[in-house]
Amino acid sequence: MNKFFNSYRLFTYTFFGLFLSLFLFTGTVAQKAAPQPPNVILFFLDDMGYGDLSVTGALGYETPHIDRMAAEGTRFTNFLAAQAVCSASRAALLTGCYPNRIGLSGALGPNSQIGLNPSEETLADLLKGKGYATGIFGKWHLGDHPTFLPLQQGFDEYFGVPYSHDMWPLHPNQANAKYPSLKLIEGNQPTKPVNTLADAGGLTSAITEHAVNFIRKNKKKPFFMYVPHPLPHVPLAVSARFKGKSKRGLYGDVMMELDWSVGEILTELKKQGLDKNTLVLFTSDNGPWLNYGEHAGSSGGFREGKGTSFEGGQRVPLIVRWPGVVPAGRVSNKLLSTLDILPTVAKLCGARQPRRKTDGLEFTGLLKGDDSQNPRQQFLYYYRKNSLEAVRQGNWKLVFAHPSRSYEGFLPGQNGQPGETTEKREMPAALYNLERDPGERYDVRGQFPEIVADLEKLAEAARTDLGDDLQNRTGANVRPVGRVAKN
Amino acid sequence: MNKFFNSYRLFTYTFFGLFLSLFLFTGTVAQKAAPQPPNVILFFLDDMGYGDLSVTGALGYETPHIDRMAAEGTRFTNFLAAQAVCSASRAALLTGCYPNRIGLSGALGPNSQIGLNPSEETLADLLKGKGYATGIFGKWHLGDHPTFLPLQQGFDEYFGVPYSHDMWPLHPNQANAKYPSLKLIEGNQPTKPVNTLADAGGLTSAITEHAVNFIRKNKKKPFFMYVPHPLPHVPLAVSARFKGKSKRGLYGDVMMELDWSVGEILTELKKQGLDKNTLVLFTSDNGPWLNYGEHAGSSGGFREGKGTSFEGGQRVPLIVRWPGVVPAGRVSNKLLSTLDILPTVAKLCGARQPRRKTDGLEFTGLLKGDDSQNPRQQFLYYYRKNSLEAVRQGNWKLVFAHPSRSYEGFLPGQNGQPGETTEKREMPAALYNLERDPGERYDVRGQFPEIVADLEKLAEAARTDLGDDLQNRTGANVRPVGRVAKN
Repeated sequence: MNKFFNSYRLFTYTFFGLFLSLFLFTGTVAQKAAPQPPNVILFFLDDMGYGDLSVTGALGYETPHIDRMAAEGTRFTNFLAAQAVCSASRAALLTGCYPNRIGLSGALGPNSQIGLNPSEETLADLLKGKGYATGIFGKWHLGDHPTFLPLQQGFDEYFGVPYSHDMWPLHPNQANAKYPSLKLIEGNQPTKPVNTLADAGGLTSAITEHAVNFIRKNKKKPFFMYVPHPLPHVPLAVSARFKGKSKRGLYGDVMMELDWSVGEILTELKKQGLDKNTLVLFTSDNGPWLNYGEHAGSSGGFREGKGTSFEGGQRVPLIVRWPGVVPAGRVSNKLLSTLDILPTVAKLCGARQPRRKTDGLEFTGLLKGDDSQNPRQQFLYYYRKNSLEAVRQGNWKLVFAHPSRSYEGFLPGQNGQPGETTEKREMPAALYNLERDPGERYDVRGQFPEIVADLEKLAEAARTDLGDDLQNRTGANVRPVGRVAKN
Repeated sequence: MNKFFNSYRLFTYTFFGLFLSLFLFTGTVAQKAAPQPPNVILFFLDDMGYGDLSVTGALGYETPHIDRMAAEGTRFTNFLAAQAVCSASRAALLTGCYPNRIGLSGALGPNSQIGLNPSEETLADLLKGKGYATGIFGKWHLGDHPTFLPLQQGFDEYFGVPYSHDMWPLHPNQANAKYPSLKLIEGNQPTKPVNTLADAGGLTSAITEHAVNFIRKNKKKPFFMYVPHPLPHVPLAVSARFKGKSKRGLYGDVMMELDWSVGEILTELKKQGLDKNTLVLFTSDNGPWLNYGEHAGSSGGFREGKGTSFEGGQRVPLIVRWPGVVPAGRVSNKLLSTLDILPTVAKLCGARQPRRKTDGLEFTGLLKGDDSQNPRQQFLYYYRKNSLEAVRQGNWKLVFAHPSRSYEGFLPGQNGQPGETTEKREMPAALYNLERDPGERYDVRGQFPEIVADLEKLAEAARTDLGDDLQNRTGANVRPVGRVAKN
């Protein structure tokens, strides 16, 4: 009897133990419903092409940390940068506006008299308004005059370079090195110059270190951390321990170090127990700068690259990870743009939306796995500066005849030197069906006149809208872009 | 004291419970070390391009079951079909030989006088020799004379069509319909004709049903099941419940049904408890048949398609899943070929390798996650029929001047009709660096003469080797290809 009783007790307690395990386990899962708004980390690489990750077909090196981020989150294959040039793309990312809506397109040089107008609301402004700690570690490139630097644009902390690191004495083509030096900036103050490739080779690790410290420092409150790595933009530079690590030369080494950086930051998140309540986004500003030859990235087979409105210029990977909220291991091909990041992140964080008109469409439902949300099934515009070069509806893309940079038919550079290229090749009008022709090789304008007509109408509406708005924003009280009085 | 004793007991038993859970859990994991050789399922789609899965960028429809298979297994992004045409590619898959080594290239028509020589050892022969139950459900296309059908080539069971389903009265271009009918074959006997699109629309589900039954029937012994779906080859056909399901028209519907089929078969594996001990491979015979317009798949941006030796013709996805053995969520960019499947699967199953010379290189280490294994870092040859059109070393590809089918510059067909194309466009010699130029758009022959010279030497060696071997195999005892005496 006593024996039976003991077995009975053994049985009950064992069950109790099993239940306890189950309870502990579900407790961990339930962590996703934490009430604090999520932290946000936004990686933004420079000139990294669509095909530069293992998950998108990179050859000669692998990106295991970013691949794992994709396996643990959702990867978007039909995501486009708002313009195929550095400053313009960054302006769109931070404001949710086509860069030409706010008068900022192209790439700013050092000592620029213009910059992102601080009266535009950035994602940092919106999240700061919601009580977030905000930091940027990396490349700004939206005006290097103190008026335009990050501390005026919603960021509490800044460490990085103010513009591209080829705008300095080590420009690959020395004859073009118009600018005396590139400064690392901490807060609002230049600290030390980055004037050698060894200096530039330290950028990725220094930025990573600052990012890791920011996470440690802000683990108790929600934070927004923007990590716009200056690489793999030329001139390529890498720290000693990644030198020669890949079979793809210096470009592969640089990508491996950037992948390491993503891994370090995600590891720190886990260490601090913030992993489950942090939304992490990873993307790039535009496609590869192909005339740098083996020092350039890969478009993954898409046509052309940086500085063009073909898919190779604007299609970039987007990976989003937020365990328990964003489905793991999912791949989505819904059309999205850099423009859409601001409204989506603001909504997920419970922040308000910008007061002025913007171009972003929120995709929080889609991000959480609701496939019925498809905000951009209607349209997307491909601008270069103020010129509308192409328009998209669903997976049809109408290209208007336009002069364009082109990499085809020119020999690329070698050893980090730029090759020949042209800014003035005349591209003919064409209609591409990106479903069957993602490489934009087969013009089918002649077969689908109604689709051409529809897309032309869409384009006309866009031209009017942006023209009117730019007019409004250039009125008495609003400048389209900040302008420094000449001293 | 008694109370303390009780708490103590509660504590111990609870721990015991926790341990028991842990034990049960590790027991599940340890299942991977089961002593029985693995079952093997090999999906082989027809004319499915590199870009036709969500994971590789398909637009307008999604492939969630295949995507999940990739997330639970390893996806290879640098995998090439052995030739870009149906029969040739299948011959290579089943024998591990370049198709021209065994005298079988191109695509066989109905009533063909030749076929795969039964004296060649197929993967089915090797696994049958090891005691496997073997079945093929789908398209054979290695000779429709009974001499060459699957039951003569190592398979116990066959259900499917003997050649492509456009070689019948419903050929999209009626004028080309040389052949009176297409029969479904069960075992060695034709059963019923497939003479309407509705019949063809039932192919995917009928094949799936046979595959599911084969799993149920053979759950107690190791099995090898080859599932060469006849679709998404033209003419496209889909069952009623997938009609209109995608936003990519009939092609998307067909891909969704094929994705469903993969899902059904994987679900059955789990139901039967065979999931953990089954190696599943998924790939395609060649790239998309682009002149069928919206009835064709997508190369994902690679150049050209089916019937060409450009990447669009030969690069296809390969996904391999074997829980606990093949790492989950991994993406590998090591160069591999259809040729390599036979030696790898044979090794994993403990079967012997073929007795005659083959061209496959085993990659079991790489498959298990050992990155130091890279069997094809040395070379790969791109043949069309017996002509060596290109050679690969690492990620360099030297294209020899050759006449080729080309889809560029021709309008594709509409509504399932083939468009114009040519078989005779003259392709110039070129050197491509597929790392930075996966789209084969930028010839850099002029910049790398030493690499051109190296690759030319490799090509010369290949020409000699295959020429000699074909000579041997055509000797007194060995025919390069089975030939039926005319009755």
